[in-house]
Amino acid sequence: MFNKILLLSLQISLLGTTLGGNILIWPMDGSHWLNIKIIIDELITKQHNVTVLVGSGALFITPTVSPSLKFERYKVPFSKETIERLINNFVLTWLEHRPSPSTLWRFYQEITKVIKDFHKVSRGICDGVLKNEKLMEKLKSGNFEVLVSDPVFPCGDIVALKLGIPFIYSLRFSPASTVEKHCGKVPYPPSYVPAILSELSDRMSFADRVRNFISYHLQDYMFETLWKSWDSYYSNALGRPTTLCEIMGKAEIWLIRTYWDFEFPRPYLPNFEFVGGLHCKPAKPLPKEMEDFVQSSGEDGIVAFSLGSMVKNLTEEKANLIASALAQIPQKVLWRYQGKKPATLGSNTRIFDWLPQNDLLGHPKTKAFITHGGTNGIYEAIYHGIPMVGLPMFADQPDNIAHMRAKGAAVEVNFNTMTSADLLSALRTVINDPSYKENAMRLSRIHHDQPIKPLDRAVFWIEFVMRHKGAKHLRPASHDLTWFQYHSLDVIGFLLACVMTVIFMVTKCCLFSCKKIGKIGKKKKRE
Amino acid sequence: MFNKILLLSLQISLLGTTLGGNILIWPMDGSHWLNIKIIIDELITKQHNVTVLVGSGALFITPTVSPSLKFERYKVPFSKETIERLINNFVLTWLEHRPSPSTLWRFYQEITKVIKDFHKVSRGICDGVLKNEKLMEKLKSGNFEVLVSDPVFPCGDIVALKLGIPFIYSLRFSPASTVEKHCGKVPYPPSYVPAILSELSDRMSFADRVRNFISYHLQDYMFETLWKSWDSYYSNALGRPTTLCEIMGKAEIWLIRTYWDFEFPRPYLPNFEFVGGLHCKPAKPLPKEMEDFVQSSGEDGIVAFSLGSMVKNLTEEKANLIASALAQIPQKVLWRYQGKKPATLGSNTRIFDWLPQNDLLGHPKTKAFITHGGTNGIYEAIYHGIPMVGLPMFADQPDNIAHMRAKGAAVEVNFNTMTSADLLSALRTVINDPSYKENAMRLSRIHHDQPIKPLDRAVFWIEFVMRHKGAKHLRPASHDLTWFQYHSLDVIGFLLACVMTVIFMVTKCCLFSCKKIGKIGKKKKRE
Repeated sequence: MFNKILLLSLQISLLGTTLGGNILIWPMDGSHWLNIKIIIDELITKQHNVTVLVGSGALFITPTVSPSLKFERYKVPFSKETIERLINNFVLTWLEHRPSPSTLWRFYQEITKVIKDFHKVSRGICDGVLKNEKLMEKLKSGNFEVLVSDPVFPCGDIVALKLGIPFIYSLRFSPASTVEKHCGKVPYPPSYVPAILSELSDRMSFADRVRNFISYHLQDYMFETLWKSWDSYYSNALGRPTTLCEIMGKAEIWLIRTYWDFEFPRPYLPNFEFVGGLHCKPAKPLPKEMEDFVQSSGEDGIVAFSLGSMVKNLTEEKANLIASALAQIPQKVLWRYQGKKPATLGSNTRIFDWLPQNDLLGHPKTKAFITHGGTNGIYEAIYHGIPMVGLPMFADQPDNIAHMRAKGAAVEVNFNTMTSADLLSALRTVINDPSYKENAMRLSRIHHDQPIKPLDRAVFWIEFVMRHKGAKHLRPASHDLTWFQYHSLDVIGFLLACVMTVIFMVTKCCLFSCKKIGKIGKKKKRE
Repeated sequence: MFNKILLLSLQISLLGTTLGGNILIWPMDGSHWLNIKIIIDELITKQHNVTVLVGSGALFITPTVSPSLKFERYKVPFSKETIERLINNFVLTWLEHRPSPSTLWRFYQEITKVIKDFHKVSRGICDGVLKNEKLMEKLKSGNFEVLVSDPVFPCGDIVALKLGIPFIYSLRFSPASTVEKHCGKVPYPPSYVPAILSELSDRMSFADRVRNFISYHLQDYMFETLWKSWDSYYSNALGRPTTLCEIMGKAEIWLIRTYWDFEFPRPYLPNFEFVGGLHCKPAKPLPKEMEDFVQSSGEDGIVAFSLGSMVKNLTEEKANLIASALAQIPQKVLWRYQGKKPATLGSNTRIFDWLPQNDLLGHPKTKAFITHGGTNGIYEAIYHGIPMVGLPMFADQPDNIAHMRAKGAAVEVNFNTMTSADLLSALRTVINDPSYKENAMRLSRIHHDQPIKPLDRAVFWIEFVMRHKGAKHLRPASHDLTWFQYHSLDVIGFLLACVMTVIFMVTKCCLFSCKKIGKIGKKKKRE
């Protein structure tokens, strides 16, 4: 008997641990890679072997040598330059047609064109793996237990199904924001959940709610027209009639790269985990020279300034405009910028090719952060409680800054139309109005005060899926309903038909009775 | 500078801890008390001072003496016997009118009458505290930081507001199940989320979905008719026009006493935490005599049998029927029963006044659990991976067993109509069909494999609310919308009006143009 007790306790104690397994990664390039790399590193420290699928056109994913980390390279029918051109085109289209109430339709039209080009590239990436028989054979013999996919470029899910293993998504938001809704089955009530990219908050006026409602429907339309085209690709690849949405809906866990310090509270499902800021960590000391410069700021402190890894240069005019604003604040400024030194650069501003952003934001002298509004950077600012000036340009950046603005931790400056005075005023506001620092610190406290750290939660659920070969107990039954069943339209229709039938029958009976009574009355009169 | 770094690190490290605070508890009697008592004990081990408000009519809440646990007693205008009579009436009504598709309306009518009596008692409890000026003064000087309320009996929320402190709910489900929906703003899609008490699963046929849809609307109707009557009480108590729902919606966190091992996956909100099974713990050794009896079962093992703390006796006929079924299995049976020894009792069955239920369920010899289906007992069975035979009687018991049945870990026997053969067949099924044990073990694995234990999560969120004076960052903005705004009816109406106006204008223009063209044509003809 005691052997049995021992066995049971051993079983239970083993539940929380996973012995080193094999994990396959379907990554996305750019800042997405920086984020998933943190998860990979943590998986490696937990004794797992990680293999990353990387196409020949990748920009940021640089294979490194490590015994637990392998990179499986595959050829794609386009060069790095094609990707760079595409991203450039994406940024420019966004900057030119940034959505506003009056330009919403035009914006969606223009961005649809760019997304179509992305989809072409995306299909090339898919083909690069799925049609590479040698690679697929190698993967099949790799004994992978789970695939972690960033689904901005589809296909990771197909690879997982072909290998017969469960898959997990890691994403900030899906393109057109409707994948979580349509494939993940998460309800998004348009009355208080702002559509992604709408730049609205959860407190909306009537006009805002009208705009939000329209945004949802435009994004649904975009999804229908663009993502629908993937259905035949998915059907061909899997050898049976299916849809992109049906397959994406099979994700065991959706690791969302935000949390309630950033998001507005909204409904979600038990297979969604909000792990925003999983890359954040305490600041390390700065390089000696940089620390000296920071210390020279005295009581005034410093401002950190970066427009992210995508934007390297600005027009000379824009750079001068920015530099002249920076020159007018008492703080020292550390600016990550690879372009020509602006003529108006003040003595308080120093330009760097690269900044240790997290270490700077965690420095006690840092008063503000000028940012393009990428999720990674915003989370570092939240982590360290630093108020922001947002200069958003494309993708989720304007929306991210709108979130921080709504939470009172940022001021936004329109990158297209800004003057030197606009930037200066925004900087003075976030530095001198104590409410911005207070709000940033409040978000920081919320971020730090979670039952488990976001990175640990992300790794827990990946390991959970490995231990249990899925997480089916978290999967809502809505995945097995058609859209009209999901919205109970068949039930409502049936009940309406019942009511109508009853009304019809009662009316008929009444009419029949009235006629009968009428006839009897006439008969009596005649008698 | 380094002082500042130190201060910041100290600040951050302190975030995860709460120095001993004062916590007020608004408990509910019966098995609810057993559950919240576990939270109280954990809060005490974390150095908090806990005060429990307990009415003179309480049955199970027995004040104990402890330096960190105080009981504030207050008088209520009814005796313990009134409560016992009420519960008895509740059980009998349920047993007599247990909801089935054909008796749904009659069931709701009958149960409404009983709930009305409960509400009368409930108002007595409220008055007992709110009108007791001395007690309220004492509470005001108690420096409480949070109130934890079981909202089956309303009023805890009013006490919290009167003391100016945040409050948290601990509940299994709210009466009529609509409080989470209407006051908590959680969406419940009727197409795949079975209404509570409906005994349906998340996999529903068309007929089931019709029944579920009707169940939701009947429960809504019940809520409207019964809980609406509290609005004036709440308004009077708080001295301003308000509603029960508005006040209940102010709960910072809703600690729900289930988890996804028991629940069907469904949407929820970030201020909802599922902490089901927080009372479960590893089994302790049995008393010597009991262990000897258990060991005497040999390879066949034992069956644990309890109908909970509410049902003490059965009719002689029912007891004999049960005993004769138990006599026919090779297992030894431990039966918690306080009635007269049945004549048909087999030599394999032993009757006990009380059972160490958790220790028995955790015993390696235990093969099955015969249960009334209370949430606490079901969670102990899940924790230890024991398949169940359900003999549900009232409240959520039939629904709880329906959940376990749907998950393949239980067989249900109708308590009203069962024969000896029914019970015997059910017992043989769960003991001999290995799928029941496998499913129970699967649920057990899910339960044990959580990032943090349910009790730790419950305590974390109580302490979070104390640290931050609330959890406003988790509160959805839907609380500030009217019902028609929430459902976007004003937006849809406005957009429809716009479309109609455009259609009207276009039609008018067309008609006008047609007329004009017609006139010109006629003119030309005339010419």
